[in-house]
Amino acid sequence: MSTQPPGPRTVHSWSLERLVFFSDAVFAIAITLLVLPLTEVQFTDVNLGRELLRLWPELLSFVMSFAVIGNYWVAHHRMFRHIVDVDARLVWLNFGFLLVIAFLPFPTAVLGEHGDTTPAAVLYAGAMSLTGFTSATMWAHASYRGRLVHPALDRRAVRYLQLRSLVVPATFVPSIGVAFLSPVAAWFLWLAAFPLLGLVRRLGGR
Amino acid sequence: MSTQPPGPRTVHSWSLERLVFFSDAVFAIAITLLVLPLTEVQFTDVNLGRELLRLWPELLSFVMSFAVIGNYWVAHHRMFRHIVDVDARLVWLNFGFLLVIAFLPFPTAVLGEHGDTTPAAVLYAGAMSLTGFTSATMWAHASYRGRLVHPALDRRAVRYLQLRSLVVPATFVPSIGVAFLSPVAAWFLWLAAFPLLGLVRRLGGR
Amino acid sequence: MSTQPPGPRTVHSWSLERLVFFSDAVFAIAITLLVLPLTEVQFTDVNLGRELLRLWPELLSFVMSFAVIGNYWVAHHRMFRHIVDVDARLVWLNFGFLLVIAFLPFPTAVLGEHGDTTPAAVLYAGAMSLTGFTSATMWAHASYRGRLVHPALDRRAVRYLQLRSLVVPATFVPSIGVAFLSPVAAWFLWLAAFPLLGLVRRLGGR
Amino acid sequence: MSTQPPGPRTVHSWSLERLVFFSDAVFAIAITLLVLPLTEVQFTDVNLGRELLRLWPELLSFVMSFAVIGNYWVAHHRMFRHIVDVDARLVWLNFGFLLVIAFLPFPTAVLGEHGDTTPAAVLYAGAMSLTGFTSATMWAHASYRGRLVHPALDRRAVRYLQLRSLVVPATFVPSIGVAFLSPVAAWFLWLAAFPLLGLVRRLGGR
Repeated sequence: MSTQPPGPRTVHSWSLERLVFFSDAVFAIAITLLVLPLTEVQFTDVNLGRELLRLWPELLSFVMSFAVIGNYWVAHHRMFRHIVDVDARLVWLNFGFLLVIAFLPFPTAVLGEHGDTTPAAVLYAGAMSLTGFTSATMWAHASYRGRLVHPALDRRAVRYLQLRSLVVPATFVPSIGVAFLSPVAAWFLWLAAFPLLGLVRRLGGR
Repeated sequence: MSTQPPGPRTVHSWSLERLVFFSDAVFAIAITLLVLPLTEVQFTDVNLGRELLRLWPELLSFVMSFAVIGNYWVAHHRMFRHIVDVDARLVWLNFGFLLVIAFLPFPTAVLGEHGDTTPAAVLYAGAMSLTGFTSATMWAHASYRGRLVHPALDRRAVRYLQLRSLVVPATFVPSIGVAFLSPVAAWFLWLAAFPLLGLVRRLGGR
Repeated sequence: MSTQPPGPRTVHSWSLERLVFFSDAVFAIAITLLVLPLTEVQFTDVNLGRELLRLWPELLSFVMSFAVIGNYWVAHHRMFRHIVDVDARLVWLNFGFLLVIAFLPFPTAVLGEHGDTTPAAVLYAGAMSLTGFTSATMWAHASYRGRLVHPALDRRAVRYLQLRSLVVPATFVPSIGVAFLSPVAAWFLWLAAFPLLGLVRRLGGR
Repeated sequence: MSTQPPGPRTVHSWSLERLVFFSDAVFAIAITLLVLPLTEVQFTDVNLGRELLRLWPELLSFVMSFAVIGNYWVAHHRMFRHIVDVDARLVWLNFGFLLVIAFLPFPTAVLGEHGDTTPAAVLYAGAMSLTGFTSATMWAHASYRGRLVHPALDRRAVRYLQLRSLVVPATFVPSIGVAFLSPVAAWFLWLAAFPLLGLVRRLGGR
């Protein structure tokens, strides 16, 4: 933080810096809070081994949500590498996105405990899809006609980041329908999202 | 962090930097902890769908508090964009403000579970009003006779930031009276605060 | 973060920066977690007003602990303003100090619920005293023969920071004895610590 | 954050900076959440003293986990002091490592409550070992043929950091076998890890 007069350059870069910092902190807290439902489970001394093994759905939903939040953190980071300016709308779209990220510990906890039920799977798939849509909206606003991004950014990179935000909804939205037939089938569909994400990452370069 | 001698300039800018960083972290943690009461609700497998739908007051109070904390984060950010110096009193007024921000998960949790009762609505409205008053006090201290702000800052911007801090109390203080008559009416009043906030933001420029 | 070769200067300043950042984050999280015991209280709809009012000991212990952590954050910040180098021992002494800070939500929660009992008051006073002793130890290590501090730092500032760390134990250690006679009397002694702290701050300049 | 074109140098250093910041935040949150199981214990007024004293296993597991996370934070910090570039794989290996760090509050809570049982000791020792393996994998990737590290980094420092990551598994993996015979013996083995860590630190220089 400098003591220079708050000219446009200083203001924008400071606003960007605080926005990115604040977002990183929310990502870090949300990803770390995912473990809390696990710490609150009550066990008995006698059957502890078996009770721990029965926690695998909680554990799997913890890992899936960790990977999804991690993935969006990387996507957010790639977007903001190209963003050089900030307006009020970007701030609020970013808050909308962070609201969904901060909300994820809830569907994760519900899925961990009630993963074989349709409502838990629908809630989880819905929340996961929302992260993609809010992320894509934010990027659409920032990149539209090069509004807030660096002038040298090429169209391919813009489209790649848009596509990347939508890979998660591309598997999670259909899974909402699947969850009404079989919640377990929805889990398999979600696990299929991770190789797909890896593929999109590879196509888009580093 | 430089290894320069701690001259006045360095000291102030480092103090400012740590103060802003610390405040951002408290904002980020408080906003992310809002979800915890949701993750602690106990559900049954059989009625999960209906039980989730019945959580809408918890969800709505989560979103409202998220928006209010987000709004104060933006206001804090705008204030500290103009603040170029820091004194002991600013540090303590900022702590008072952060105490109220860090407290908000409590009234939010109470409102989510007991939103149709007068005490929950009064507690929520009181806490929300306090954020505005402490924020306004901090800004009054910093901007009084240009004490801690950049010399080039004009009076209109000073008054705008003062006004902006007080928009939230302007709807939440009257709602305390309303809550004694009807807690539900208080909710409607709060939801009206958001367009009002948007209006004030628009009047004040970016 | 620069891509320069990791010469001594770069290394020290980066180590310092990460240490300060990490400490600030632990302070911010510990201070914000203080609210959690409040959010976990179960209320009834019918007696909510009375039940909320009966929470004043929880609220008071929340505010006291917030003020003490805030006070140590300021003291930490003042120490690290003068520290220009870092060694392994400082890192570990700082971890010991942060362990006590991160532990504080526990005695605060116990005091809030069982504040009129001797064990709760002793636990609280003991933990609070420990923060002062670990803080003083860290500063003694850093400032001893000017080991890690800026050469221009004068002896008065060194002694002032030492004194300041010990003001909290100066009231909390005697209160351990008092708590065995009357836990309520211990509360009054603690509240007396705050004006004392203010006095020491004033004597030491800004 | 600068407004320069995102040339390779800027991009790498910013990516590094956000990665390190994000990791520090996860470390800080995980280390501070360790206290939560303690704050959730229910006590009675009458036997509070005795109930608090009976919490020593919770307290000891809190301190051990705090020390282990602190140790890995220092190791992470030392690694990233030498890392000057970042690739997608490093980002994901770092996420894998952070997943284990963020998971630690769970085995810590289980150990605190059921520390005299084999499953709790096995879970704890397994999780602790995993931190070491993921940390070592990350460093192996970064340092292999000098891929992402500073060219001036010598081989001894590379090997030292590898060794250091593996000290924790070196005691925790054997303790898994010991825990099947006697969980209490496993505790003693873990406590022996700390002097061992200190020794390795001393051998490796500052």
